[in-house]
Amino acid sequence: MNDITRRLESLGHSMPALAPASANYLRWRLDGDLLVLAGQIGEPGAAAAIAGDPERLRADAGLAALKLLATLEAAVEGDASRIEAVLRLGVFVAAGPEFKRHSEVADGASDLVVAALGERGRHARTAVGVAGLPTGAAVEVDAIVRLRPQQAR
Amino acid sequence: MNDITRRLESLGHSMPALAPASANYLRWRLDGDLLVLAGQIGEPGAAAAIAGDPERLRADAGLAALKLLATLEAAVEGDASRIEAVLRLGVFVAAGPEFKRHSEVADGASDLVVAALGERGRHARTAVGVAGLPTGAAVEVDAIVRLRPQQAR
Amino acid sequence: MNDITRRLESLGHSMPALAPASANYLRWRLDGDLLVLAGQIGEPGAAAAIAGDPERLRADAGLAALKLLATLEAAVEGDASRIEAVLRLGVFVAAGPEFKRHSEVADGASDLVVAALGERGRHARTAVGVAGLPTGAAVEVDAIVRLRPQQAR
Repeated sequence: MNDITRRLESLGHSMPALAPASANYLRWRLDGDLLVLAGQIGEPGAAAAIAGDPERLRADAGLAALKLLATLEAAVEGDASRIEAVLRLGVFVAAGPEFKRHSEVADGASDLVVAALGERGRHARTAVGVAGLPTGAAVEVDAIVRLRPQQAR
Repeated sequence: MNDITRRLESLGHSMPALAPASANYLRWRLDGDLLVLAGQIGEPGAAAAIAGDPERLRADAGLAALKLLATLEAAVEGDASRIEAVLRLGVFVAAGPEFKRHSEVADGASDLVVAALGERGRHARTAVGVAGLPTGAAVEVDAIVRLRPQQAR
Repeated sequence: MNDITRRLESLGHSMPALAPASANYLRWRLDGDLLVLAGQIGEPGAAAAIAGDPERLRADAGLAALKLLATLEAAVEGDASRIEAVLRLGVFVAAGPEFKRHSEVADGASDLVVAALGERGRHARTAVGVAGLPTGAAVEVDAIVRLRPQQAR
């Protein structure tokens, strides 16, 4: 198993270690077959260094997506075949009023989710620019995912 | 069919053409009977001209809602009778810290959704002010919609 | 009945009165057993006074959560046993780019939801910093909640 890790590592990405939630919330909440994933930031405190730089923001969105995918893998206990569809990504980019390339940045996350999961990873998305993010991060990404119904339940 | 277009045109609105998603995401993702609609912006790049002007922002929120409704109509293949309920709108208004009239702006979207769909269009809503939006847009709106279960599935 | 109010009052909180939605949206939308709660702000107009102050922002997030819990209690007609799980909180903090303690602020909301509902109140969460909020509020919180299936339906 661990299909997601295998797939992403074959593409040259290394999966980040999963930190426990640093505050009073859950990294994910499973509701029947609906999986709600908490927001994951890219590099903590990165906004100061990379604000306004679309390429670096895009890479940071990719890091947030890797963390989200690591969480997803943990939620399905390594068995990616249980994932039916990524329904939605929310992408928050720390950027001022003059920034306009949020879609490009958000593709840094979307591209990785689709690379990891193929058609099942294609999703609706909302990308916006925010004033700031926890720890001074530059990008935060959350998701809603549908799992396959389990037989033995 | 095309009930939504007919209803809105009878109210004097003209439906915008549906552009394909400009990046790596889907305009909507259908999950059983749950329909997740990606964020739609109003006029691209409008923030520079209309920031801080509640009336123009409200009209722009209406344009974003028209795009969202055109997407919804496409998702149900023109058959609005398949729509059971609009569960939620998310409304993002590009505005600085001094702006306070987000609810008024968001009503520009909500009013149109209710005008198009009546009671079925009444929704929960979250409206916030953001630092910026893709293309420099002034307003972005997304939605979650429940469809009626289909017989022949 | 009114279990939430009783529990929170035993902890020293007083439940805020429920104002009707001040614009064209619903405080909540029930979809089968899925309950979508509209965003609730803390103290109207508070941002000017408390921006940048983590402790006061945290208390304001608590107020927003109390309003959300009062709404939830109304939605289940006072019968908290109908609540199965709080799936997700969205927390929006009005704060500039230099602010980094959104998680601490958001815990002001999460702590109260967990205090009121115990394990059932533990949730996934997305916390971000926004440019501004309706009325000039400092914090806004929304939620998605799963109710227990009802027998007699």
